[in-house]
Amino acid sequence: MQETRRGVLSALADGPMSGPELADDLGVSRAAIWKHVEALREAGFEIDSDDGGYRLVSVPEFGAEAVEFCLEAPFSVEYHDSIASTNDRARELADAGATDVVVLADEQTGGRGRLDRRWASPSGGIWFSVVCRPALPPAHVPIYTLAAAVATAEALRSVGVDAGIKWPNDVLSGEGRKLVGILTEMEGEADRVSWVVVGIGINANVDAGAVPRTATTLRAEVGDVERAALTCDVLDRFDELRADPDSVLPRWRSLSLTLGRRVRVETPVETIVGEAVAVEHPGTLVVQTDTGERRVSAGDCEHLRPA
Amino acid sequence: MQETRRGVLSALADGPMSGPELADDLGVSRAAIWKHVEALREAGFEIDSDDGGYRLVSVPEFGAEAVEFCLEAPFSVEYHDSIASTNDRARELADAGATDVVVLADEQTGGRGRLDRRWASPSGGIWFSVVCRPALPPAHVPIYTLAAAVATAEALRSVGVDAGIKWPNDVLSGEGRKLVGILTEMEGEADRVSWVVVGIGINANVDAGAVPRTATTLRAEVGDVERAALTCDVLDRFDELRADPDSVLPRWRSLSLTLGRRVRVETPVETIVGEAVAVEHPGTLVVQTDTGERRVSAGDCEHLRPA
Repeated sequence: MQETRRGVLSALADGPMSGPELADDLGVSRAAIWKHVEALREAGFEIDSDDGGYRLVSVPEFGAEAVEFCLEAPFSVEYHDSIASTNDRARELADAGATDVVVLADEQTGGRGRLDRRWASPSGGIWFSVVCRPALPPAHVPIYTLAAAVATAEALRSVGVDAGIKWPNDVLSGEGRKLVGILTEMEGEADRVSWVVVGIGINANVDAGAVPRTATTLRAEVGDVERAALTCDVLDRFDELRADPDSVLPRWRSLSLTLGRRVRVETPVETIVGEAVAVEHPGTLVVQTDTGERRVSAGDCEHLRPA
Repeated sequence: MQETRRGVLSALADGPMSGPELADDLGVSRAAIWKHVEALREAGFEIDSDDGGYRLVSVPEFGAEAVEFCLEAPFSVEYHDSIASTNDRARELADAGATDVVVLADEQTGGRGRLDRRWASPSGGIWFSVVCRPALPPAHVPIYTLAAAVATAEALRSVGVDAGIKWPNDVLSGEGRKLVGILTEMEGEADRVSWVVVGIGINANVDAGAVPRTATTLRAEVGDVERAALTCDVLDRFDELRADPDSVLPRWRSLSLTLGRRVRVETPVETIVGEAVAVEHPGTLVVQTDTGERRVSAGDCEHLRPA
């Protein structure tokens, strides 16, 4: 069903087509085509019909239907025009037993970053949180955070943004400004999580003046993007990465802005300065210091000028 | 204050003493001694006074006062005669912002073990959960679980039980029967926990018939114990271990029943069979298999007969 509907949409995206042509192309009846077109219209897709056949006039720019429609991955989407925090709502859903649900919003009024830092989330951005229930120990959850960074950086590159990743999960523009924030939260036992919520905030169709000076937006970098399509791309890539965790680190490395750089990493207990030489499962940074190799599993990383 | 009160108690534990003698010994006034004795009586300590001075007749066997009184570590204690689950109550307190609180019960009506397994918790046991807020990434939390196992096994040895540890945190009797269950839960971000709850259940003054066949009780092994004193000993050792995480693994190793044994470890994704050759921070088991060394961070471990 969903497959055929996507086929109709994809055919119409190339230009107007008649009902019989569509039916032939997709191997279904004309009545089925008519039903799918109606369903598309209900989902917010504007489709004209005249003597030349069906013509796709516009697609919804954002929202649950728009994202669910283009999504390959098995997520359901709960959309809010405005919400305090998609992560907070996703945690509620997780506590209630949900899984593979995406909470999506146009605006967050109380967006949070790591360590309770404030995260500006004006209307026009892409703010969403994914609820997952992986069979993982908490120790391996960082691979989910890295996967989210890889999925987002790759999706941004596909719309022309020169995106790269600063360890562990900051997606930056070519000039080193922050485009994306990722906040992973979890609950569980010492050897098995019960849920993981991965929050991803993309400074999308937002004026650069509405985000902090150290950040930038897609509007400022490449102009406005189709948010539903970009959201789908991130989610589909994330779904593919979580299904194949071994693929995360190779893809992370090829997007890394940190490997080979001099870095200062602040951990809860110490500061480590040296060259970032490797990243290892589940996201550990290996830093070559003056006194030897150090492995860091968590911390704030700053890129330094060469010594 | 607490120090002097403990001094009074400790002096009286050696035999009757007059008020002036106590005052001299502890370097405080007779009026202060009188106040401390009154406070002790209020806390459930039975203290007679006659011509020969003060005489300690009995100490409370269990409860918040009894444990808080003997405790060196900075925990406050919330006691329940009966509660569904001390871990659930501790999680509530943790969500509300509490730290260094111990939820203690004589009986749990819905005691839980790992992976939602049922944990029999009849009256007479020692069932408690500790709320902590360490500055740790979730990946390092297993060291807390190992610390709890070390604290408990050492405390049991000090009351004459032949206790050892099966990786990662099962405290067993000499015959390999389970004496203690430990359930660690946490919530937080991928790189920092917001809280950890360590639940410890000791089959203490309980008939062996009231626990599963694979388990045993202190009553069956060495006879009934002073529960408040044992609880304090576990908590004080745990507090010392968490303050010095580097001391956990050496002490764990010297109590280990697993190192040097053939083991089968079931992880969420695979089964590993081989010889347990080492344990590494934060609690990873190193298993020598036919095809090489494997590192396991979580799983169910079974001791096998030598191949």
